[in-house]
Amino acid sequence: MEQASLQFRVVLLGAGRVAAQLAPALARAGHSVVAVWSRTLASAQQVAQGIGATAFGGSAPDLRSIPADVYLLCVPDDAAPAVLAAAKWPRHALVAHTSGALPLALFAACPAIRGGVFYPLQTFSANRAVDWATVPLCLEAADDADLALLTALARSLSQQVLVVATAQRQQLHVAAVFACNFTNHLLGIADALLAEANLPTDLLTPLVRETIDKALSQPPFTVQTGPAIRHDVATLLAHRRLLQAHPAWEELYGRLSASIQAQAAG
Amino acid sequence: MEQASLQFRVVLLGAGRVAAQLAPALARAGHSVVAVWSRTLASAQQVAQGIGATAFGGSAPDLRSIPADVYLLCVPDDAAPAVLAAAKWPRHALVAHTSGALPLALFAACPAIRGGVFYPLQTFSANRAVDWATVPLCLEAADDADLALLTALARSLSQQVLVVATAQRQQLHVAAVFACNFTNHLLGIADALLAEANLPTDLLTPLVRETIDKALSQPPFTVQTGPAIRHDVATLLAHRRLLQAHPAWEELYGRLSASIQAQAAG
Repeated sequence: MEQASLQFRVVLLGAGRVAAQLAPALARAGHSVVAVWSRTLASAQQVAQGIGATAFGGSAPDLRSIPADVYLLCVPDDAAPAVLAAAKWPRHALVAHTSGALPLALFAACPAIRGGVFYPLQTFSANRAVDWATVPLCLEAADDADLALLTALARSLSQQVLVVATAQRQQLHVAAVFACNFTNHLLGIADALLAEANLPTDLLTPLVRETIDKALSQPPFTVQTGPAIRHDVATLLAHRRLLQAHPAWEELYGRLSASIQAQAAG
Repeated sequence: MEQASLQFRVVLLGAGRVAAQLAPALARAGHSVVAVWSRTLASAQQVAQGIGATAFGGSAPDLRSIPADVYLLCVPDDAAPAVLAAAKWPRHALVAHTSGALPLALFAACPAIRGGVFYPLQTFSANRAVDWATVPLCLEAADDADLALLTALARSLSQQVLVVATAQRQQLHVAAVFACNFTNHLLGIADALLAEANLPTDLLTPLVRETIDKALSQPPFTVQTGPAIRHDVATLLAHRRLLQAHPAWEELYGRLSASIQAQAAG
């Protein structure tokens, strides 16, 4: 039998952006999302609707009567230990968290279940569809049979499936914060500066597209441009003067410029 | 006569990335690049070759025998005042600088010439072709006839032509540093962190693409994600611990996270 045709029974715990995007993708891939739990019943219902899943709420999910091949824990990182401890699991259930930051050792506190990691490396929004085929899925499990099951599940969604150990995944997660969250913040600052100057906010679009195309096709440090790497002191000073109305951004400007110069100096 | 069919005689001063990309684009648009000057003759020759332009070198260009409709100053910002002062210009020559940072008032020191600005808002590389049709060209001139000429020249290259006053342009330039130079540096840090963890460097590509698509389609501050905006203290601490081998990046991580939180707090 081909792996792609394996069909699993999946329970989703959590009803945030990850669960909301996983649920229809799993259904489309032929799996059976048997249930969706969230502390808030209405949130679980929203994720469960249209895919034939049962929704249930409450603070401590009782899963003993809901058998599944895998339980995907899609709650916020800081809620995961509490949900893991409070839930009543079927004996030897396979539970995989979906976090970039949490260790596999999270499951050491619950010796009656089998632990795994099913981390989709993507940023999820409520109102944007995800192209799951391109999303890297980073897997981890102590047990080879569990890893095989998670691999089959992952391959049914994505062409990019990797086994990534906890320490690697945590470093990947830090890298993703720089590449995604911090990059978005810088684009927000740029957007705000354009608005302040009464300039059209799409003016930077071609520059941003070219910057990203370049940075994704060559090591970014080797194609760095701008006043910092040129040590153009007059421009650096003029820019910081212009940012005086935004002390936090002026400070960031200085730190980022210094980091660019330090990197270039080796 | 249509503006697009106007053909100008252009002299390029400088042989860096901007001049190297402008020269063939101007020639393709039907203009006559009559000469290219650079301090280093060999650099001028490289830009001049293949478009029928004369190349010349030396520290002080004598342009009195090289009539042109416009002289485009494509030298580094910190070299511009010296080149402007040292060159021998034809009387009333129209000279436009191509800098995001320099004021139009740069030309006040040379009352015998007409000054203008022809600023292409894009990042230029030696080995990547530029799609000039999409590059915003930001123009400025004190004289309306000069602005009309610069506008006709700009429209022959690009569909995005704007008149942008010095103060606006300088703020735009700061915004571009955040959106381009600083973004590239963050992607460089992410790339280095992946390499350290022995992870494939293209692993973040789908995440970066989606981050940018999202940030360019909605105000970036409204779609911010990540541990900072969630105030996920445990993850923020864990990430800073992971970055201890790179104190400058750890510092940046803290500053950027604080800036995200300050922005969200309004």
